[in-house]
Amino acid sequence: MATKRRVTIALIAEEAGVSIPTVSKVINGRPEVAPETRQRVERLLHKHGYQRRVSQDGEPAGLIDLVFAEIESPWAIEIIRGAESAAREAGGSVVISVLHTHAGPGRDWLERIAARRTDGVVIVASRLSGAIQAQLTARSLPFVVVDPEGEPAPGVVSVGATNWNGGLAATRHLLELGHRRIGVISGPADMLCSQARIDGYRAALETAGVEVVPELIRRGTFLVDSGHDHGHALLSLDNPPTAIFAGSDLQAFGVFEAARQRGLRVPEDLSVVGFDDLPLSRSAWPPLTTVRQPLEEMAALATRTVLTMGRGEAPETRRVELATDLIVRDSTAPPRAGAAHAEP
Amino acid sequence: MATKRRVTIALIAEEAGVSIPTVSKVINGRPEVAPETRQRVERLLHKHGYQRRVSQDGEPAGLIDLVFAEIESPWAIEIIRGAESAAREAGGSVVISVLHTHAGPGRDWLERIAARRTDGVVIVASRLSGAIQAQLTARSLPFVVVDPEGEPAPGVVSVGATNWNGGLAATRHLLELGHRRIGVISGPADMLCSQARIDGYRAALETAGVEVVPELIRRGTFLVDSGHDHGHALLSLDNPPTAIFAGSDLQAFGVFEAARQRGLRVPEDLSVVGFDDLPLSRSAWPPLTTVRQPLEEMAALATRTVLTMGRGEAPETRRVELATDLIVRDSTAPPRAGAAHAEP
Repeated sequence: MATKRRVTIALIAEEAGVSIPTVSKVINGRPEVAPETRQRVERLLHKHGYQRRVSQDGEPAGLIDLVFAEIESPWAIEIIRGAESAAREAGGSVVISVLHTHAGPGRDWLERIAARRTDGVVIVASRLSGAIQAQLTARSLPFVVVDPEGEPAPGVVSVGATNWNGGLAATRHLLELGHRRIGVISGPADMLCSQARIDGYRAALETAGVEVVPELIRRGTFLVDSGHDHGHALLSLDNPPTAIFAGSDLQAFGVFEAARQRGLRVPEDLSVVGFDDLPLSRSAWPPLTTVRQPLEEMAALATRTVLTMGRGEAPETRRVELATDLIVRDSTAPPRAGAAHAEP
Repeated sequence: MATKRRVTIALIAEEAGVSIPTVSKVINGRPEVAPETRQRVERLLHKHGYQRRVSQDGEPAGLIDLVFAEIESPWAIEIIRGAESAAREAGGSVVISVLHTHAGPGRDWLERIAARRTDGVVIVASRLSGAIQAQLTARSLPFVVVDPEGEPAPGVVSVGATNWNGGLAATRHLLELGHRRIGVISGPADMLCSQARIDGYRAALETAGVEVVPELIRRGTFLVDSGHDHGHALLSLDNPPTAIFAGSDLQAFGVFEAARQRGLRVPEDLSVVGFDDLPLSRSAWPPLTTVRQPLEEMAALATRTVLTMGRGEAPETRRVELATDLIVRDSTAPPRAGAAHAEP
């Protein structure tokens, strides 16, 4: 092993025109290397498929890095719980990082995790630039993406939920109750999960022969304020919807707020469906009908997958989507008589 | 350094009647030591004040362990954010553990953190048995407790909030609005913070010359369901309160639910004050008047303190309490005419 590794580092050093210690420094995430040199060496490590040893002292560190872009929503608790539980079962622990940017981890962070020899990285913020993927790959750090917000790059291993099916189930539930004018609020247009949910919504309407109306389709963030703002926008239309399918439970709480501010009762005057099934949603008023996204299980599966990859085994599949379930509670009801068939 | 350490280990080994390698195994968290031997060695390490070297290879690992008993409430997000941010500023990272018990960490966990050489431990679950404290101390692992739920043992370094002042401020606010019959729901009786908040409540009533009525004082957990159940219990009294001071924001949401189920409006028929100021509370309906507990700052301070202790420096003080602030929103209002002066 030692000989093979030596040869590879020597090869990289020769091709990059730098010393062997310089290549070692790049591999081990030491700071004292010029940025251009580092990039050149990383490209060559990647090109030659350099394989890091499991750890410098022969023992796995037992650490999985769980990386968030932001940590704002109660949603994150579910992810942390799932990852921590899967890591603990494997005798390891979870390190949390919050990047405070959707641009991907910076150089400092990469150096830190390389220096402490992480066993693998689970990324909850998926909008990774190609450069960051190359950097993780160059260091032979396995990584898995949970619930991609955008389209994962080719070859990236990821765990998601069946967003399209969730959108379909939520919208069908509202159609079955008799709603025909159904608004939808989703997440940012550049997140694949937002688009999948809207497409499920469209598919349900089209299958039922109900027209898809552009003014009823809104995109925001997944937080409360966005549900509040877009809820007001939908409810102030000349012909407002009788039901709203929100992109997250937090957005649904914002829609509740907008409805109350306009003197509308949920579900009598407006039906609302969420997405996620946070523990709080059961205690919302009214208790929220929502699409359960198995966040805890998704994070646990991603953690187990990255541990498998860290042992040098291939993951069973590049992409797994766990099932979503419609949970019917009290925020949905048939539309008031007459409202369902109102047309502009 | 090496000589001094050798002598100490030799001394411990002699006194315990075991070999030097056995003492090393205990210090490094290796499993192959009989429980009774381990306990005897740990007691002696503690007695002689054995000082672990910062790390086995001369570099600090850059890891802080953040330990929760349970991770259920959105409250935990604030703690994690504060700890992660303070660790990152110091060039380190945070490892999360969830113990799933209030009895303190088990042997497995202690062995794992000793083996990977944590720089220090921040404990969010404070009901540590004396044995566990001795185990952390025996391994010279510095630890700090955030927001003790019970009385921290003598010598334990801890960061809390001014719970008593928070209880006082919440109750004074209700008194100033004209309420005289004020219910309080707090946490478990064996948590010091619960008692401090109730004492603040009592102090406000007594200062205002309002009688403290035992039937208006309830204790539960800090979760939504508990607020719901105790809210119903208070509101079903022959002479129900016109205002309730809840022990947490989640409890307050449970009180909202109980009030609505009884056809009472908040704040017209019932004023509600929470405790914590979770981000969600701003978006609650109605937006929640609450006592802000600076959870993020508390966790950041605990993390900085444990890092200081890990460098071998003494903390500035054994106990810090950060200030709480009353945040007035829309869930509190004067009592309806007549209700304030109703007596049984």
